[in-house]
Amino acid sequence: MTSSGPSKRIRLVSEDGLLLIHPQNDFLPGGSLAVPRANEILPILNKYLEIFEQMALPIVFTRDWHPPDHCSFQEQGGTWPVHCVAGSEGARFSPMLRVPESALVFSGATNPDREAYSGFEGTDLDQSLKMLKVRHLYIGGLATDYCVFNTVKDALKLGYSVTLLLDAMRPVDIKPGDGKRAIESMKNRGAKSCFLQNLAFQPPRPPALAVDLYQLTMLQGYFDQKMEESAVFEFFIRRLPKNRSFLIFCGLDPVLDYLETLRFSHQDLEKLKQRGLLKNEFIHSLKTFRFTGDVDAMPEGTAIFSGEPCLRVTAPLSQCQFIETMIINFLQYQILVATKAARMILTAKNKILIDFGLRRAHSPEAGYYAARASYIAGFAGTATLNAGLDQGIPVYGTMAHSFIQAHDSEINAFRQFARSHPGNIILLLDTYDYKKAAISVVKLAKELKEENITIKGIRLDSGNLAQQAKTVRKILDQGGLKDVRIFVSGDLDEYALERLELQKAPIDGYGIGTRLATASDSPYLECAYKLQNYAGRPICKLSPGKSTLPGIKQVYRRYTKTGSLSKDEVALVGEPCDGNPLLQPVMRDGKRLHPPFPLAQIRTHTFEQLAKLPAKFLKLKGNPKEPVYFSAKLKSLKTQINDPRPKERGIER
Amino acid sequence: MTSSGPSKRIRLVSEDGLLLIHPQNDFLPGGSLAVPRANEILPILNKYLEIFEQMALPIVFTRDWHPPDHCSFQEQGGTWPVHCVAGSEGARFSPMLRVPESALVFSGATNPDREAYSGFEGTDLDQSLKMLKVRHLYIGGLATDYCVFNTVKDALKLGYSVTLLLDAMRPVDIKPGDGKRAIESMKNRGAKSCFLQNLAFQPPRPPALAVDLYQLTMLQGYFDQKMEESAVFEFFIRRLPKNRSFLIFCGLDPVLDYLETLRFSHQDLEKLKQRGLLKNEFIHSLKTFRFTGDVDAMPEGTAIFSGEPCLRVTAPLSQCQFIETMIINFLQYQILVATKAARMILTAKNKILIDFGLRRAHSPEAGYYAARASYIAGFAGTATLNAGLDQGIPVYGTMAHSFIQAHDSEINAFRQFARSHPGNIILLLDTYDYKKAAISVVKLAKELKEENITIKGIRLDSGNLAQQAKTVRKILDQGGLKDVRIFVSGDLDEYALERLELQKAPIDGYGIGTRLATASDSPYLECAYKLQNYAGRPICKLSPGKSTLPGIKQVYRRYTKTGSLSKDEVALVGEPCDGNPLLQPVMRDGKRLHPPFPLAQIRTHTFEQLAKLPAKFLKLKGNPKEPVYFSAKLKSLKTQINDPRPKERGIER
Repeated sequence: MTSSGPSKRIRLVSEDGLLLIHPQNDFLPGGSLAVPRANEILPILNKYLEIFEQMALPIVFTRDWHPPDHCSFQEQGGTWPVHCVAGSEGARFSPMLRVPESALVFSGATNPDREAYSGFEGTDLDQSLKMLKVRHLYIGGLATDYCVFNTVKDALKLGYSVTLLLDAMRPVDIKPGDGKRAIESMKNRGAKSCFLQNLAFQPPRPPALAVDLYQLTMLQGYFDQKMEESAVFEFFIRRLPKNRSFLIFCGLDPVLDYLETLRFSHQDLEKLKQRGLLKNEFIHSLKTFRFTGDVDAMPEGTAIFSGEPCLRVTAPLSQCQFIETMIINFLQYQILVATKAARMILTAKNKILIDFGLRRAHSPEAGYYAARASYIAGFAGTATLNAGLDQGIPVYGTMAHSFIQAHDSEINAFRQFARSHPGNIILLLDTYDYKKAAISVVKLAKELKEENITIKGIRLDSGNLAQQAKTVRKILDQGGLKDVRIFVSGDLDEYALERLELQKAPIDGYGIGTRLATASDSPYLECAYKLQNYAGRPICKLSPGKSTLPGIKQVYRRYTKTGSLSKDEVALVGEPCDGNPLLQPVMRDGKRLHPPFPLAQIRTHTFEQLAKLPAKFLKLKGNPKEPVYFSAKLKSLKTQINDPRPKERGIER
Repeated sequence: MTSSGPSKRIRLVSEDGLLLIHPQNDFLPGGSLAVPRANEILPILNKYLEIFEQMALPIVFTRDWHPPDHCSFQEQGGTWPVHCVAGSEGARFSPMLRVPESALVFSGATNPDREAYSGFEGTDLDQSLKMLKVRHLYIGGLATDYCVFNTVKDALKLGYSVTLLLDAMRPVDIKPGDGKRAIESMKNRGAKSCFLQNLAFQPPRPPALAVDLYQLTMLQGYFDQKMEESAVFEFFIRRLPKNRSFLIFCGLDPVLDYLETLRFSHQDLEKLKQRGLLKNEFIHSLKTFRFTGDVDAMPEGTAIFSGEPCLRVTAPLSQCQFIETMIINFLQYQILVATKAARMILTAKNKILIDFGLRRAHSPEAGYYAARASYIAGFAGTATLNAGLDQGIPVYGTMAHSFIQAHDSEINAFRQFARSHPGNIILLLDTYDYKKAAISVVKLAKELKEENITIKGIRLDSGNLAQQAKTVRKILDQGGLKDVRIFVSGDLDEYALERLELQKAPIDGYGIGTRLATASDSPYLECAYKLQNYAGRPICKLSPGKSTLPGIKQVYRRYTKTGSLSKDEVALVGEPCDGNPLLQPVMRDGKRLHPPFPLAQIRTHTFEQLAKLPAKFLKLKGNPKEPVYFSAKLKSLKTQINDPRPKERGIER
């Protein structure tokens, strides 16, 4: 199996914007002031445009927009030939460029008597970027050593952080090296840099219409009544599933991605109008629908228990309401998979665990998130290629039985594979007869040694894995292949791992698919995202078996002297309470407070959380009593609301 | 709950192409031969371009490309002012138009002595479209009554079918009504028509890199060895899950969509190169990777059993291999959900069943496909809005508890909702006390009657549903609300439905979420997609517990005289066998043989299939013996391959 480390991946966030400088005809080959090879950047610019548009992030263009008698023209004693005269063909953006409808355009150097090389000079650019809440600019365009250079300098002075799009700018280079020097100078002033491929890793994003219809029927109700006061919703687990004594919180980052980019497209609104389920006036109001609220949440990788709010949303009622469907969708699945994976990590300590789940996940997207969640829980990597590439997770994979079968003999399939992938040879032994295959491996290893190729491992995928692993280990060891590792796969889960580990099977790694990606023994969670407070009023639900605790809550975690988890107390926010508060601010006014944490960091947090769990929570079976307590104030608030309200509110008025 | 019928939705398929006529500067306002209001179509054209590009379908432009002395110019005695002179600014495509890099452009009317109003005249357009295998053209552009008109006439004559993009063309209208008459005339000749919104319903498409890495490591092996002979893979169920006596085949159409549009983007290839897992030469070869093979499959909605191939792929080895991951991914999940839904349909006959599963599905996409699969199985509709809108499934939904809680009283929440949605009132009764809520409903109904608003139904979501339904029915009936329907939801599945139906609870409809969308009692299938034949050689696998039957197979279904299913025989293709062959050709050379079937038609097929199942297969529990037999020839081929091969092939060479 092959694994490979992460390459530089940049995740765009809501404060990012794209600023393209002067991609105008006159600066392109054929134009009056052509920048050499400037046409090369056009397809690259289009790709950047596509990425920012898909992420619904601000896109801004600047253009030179000179009067015919501009002082920079040679006729007026200036340096340059006539170029970019306002309204002329030369001043137009290149027809090869796909300027999005939503893009803003700022025209500069419009005053005949003033030179202006920076896009900020004499324009409303700064003000507009601030209105759009842009704090970080990705800047490319023409020319590196003039207008890009001056715009970047101003941007940095004005407090923006800047990333240079190195593959999407070209210099005039009047003196050879001008462009290089400009880039050096911009970097020295604090600009970062990137290439297109560093940005091509944006996670899948569900469409705004991936939602239960009732969210929108309710929103129309709120719209009609102008009910837009602030609400608080909390996500929590109602009850742990059978054989779970803890869960691992996971899925927060995809939720924040969703909230940051949530908006209805023109086509979404057209589809809604066409279907006629809602009033047109209300549908029209969705055009500007954004999530502008606050989120407090536990860090991903935190061990959680039932009854604890792990994510809290504070926002105008309709926003809180609308996002219910996707909050539950993202969190439930990733908690399920991270938990299942953590149980395997606890069971097969020091073994290499790899996610093979994509094919049996309940959709391509589910497979993607299963790779993420299992890696966070401690898996070594995944077979799911797009998840691995996009998220910097090591990717593993070599061959299926069909590869062997398509060849005229098994050993020939092994041999050919080895030559195609000399650095990544894990051979699959159980297509016909695993013992004979193991003998072939020994034979082949000698042959390959002469080609300086080493077999890394073998894989068994069926039958009695413990017994086969022992037999194969013996054959390999006798053949001098002590370093060849044994991987197994096929219908594995934490219970199977426990059996194999108890049998002391000489297995180095496990490929785990179906039962991980479907969380097969507990494919859903009793979890909820519920209204706790509206317009300052604490709220609870009294439905039989589904009643909730009212008010805005925090979870405080306490540890024993030796550092293991002793008690969680759920209390009202503001109530004095010992312990570490687990819910932390992660989003304010619809903007993340910090960029997404690297998965490796979340993974470390999970390791630490697992290490702090008392022994009784580490068993695979049973449901030990959870260490969760509710504060006296919380219980008394519940009693207060519980009693008089329903009668009065259920019937009156 | 609201339901609404389908609107006109056009699904693009692989033989479709976009043909845009002359969207050039001279034909736009400001140009020398401006078509009135032609600028209005540019943003619309951009949207069409986006849709066809996303679907990876051919995009073709024509342009007028006149010599300066063209005979159509007034100076030469022609009708028109000078326009679209080759190379001039006026001949360029509008800069507002996003011409994709991949688009083909055909220049016409280049001969000074010949007029040419059709894009086909004197160009290679026809030949190129045929090479691209385009059979159906979506045509828009300028002007409706000249070049569009003449191009469409030629296209129809040449055997293309044509859809006019009515919102993306404008007429010159020299005589008022010319445009209208041209459209009439084109329609009379057989052209169809559409608007942008009719096309805005394309299903989600997994990225090419949503795949197990090993598919690509194997493909590199095949590439290195030039192993590209034809292979046959079959998808089948190894074993029915516990408590399943049949499954419903589902997911074929999404598989065909995937196959038709499968291709690697430039960015995909860059990401692969960057990660360094595969050789660059091989990665480069993926640029033109397409599925060009054949698919035979059972119709969706067919009842299937274990051991029966339900889908067969015949294609060059690497293509067959690569698609394994997504074929299993799509089919497994949709079979699971369609089967679970069919069991509910069989249990709660004549009741309204609605899919509420999105929030607990294992991803937004899974929720989308759960809506599709459950509708195919007979559900009345779904709460999942995007699935409903895109696929023409009725959508249902009204309110959650939070809506009630956010109001100052329950009855006020009911009242306000009723006024916001007078045609769609299902009131949720169990937020506080369902009996009091039912009394409120009676009271409110009288009040609303004066506003001519009728309450359609109520919903109960917790507690003892049968008992509550009986109590509420009584209250409603006594209050004169015999027509108000009772819906229930909350932790339902076929077993719960059976209990409720046995108790004769007065329930009219069920909302079913979690256990449907996760197929909770059987969240995965033991299914496989396996190599059966390579380069004409039948192949089977001998792994313990996972051995396969070799050869290319067909399934023949036989019925009793009364029309119920009696026996399925799996035989080799070509072997004489009684019964109806279930595998039918659906794709040849990578192209569908017919457009996707409407879901309503698939649904009818499912009803018929369920009606033909003998009684013993209709029980919710147990696993009765399946009616599947294997032909003598198939068994003897297995024995033949079974015996001598593994020894010889496992070690020799």
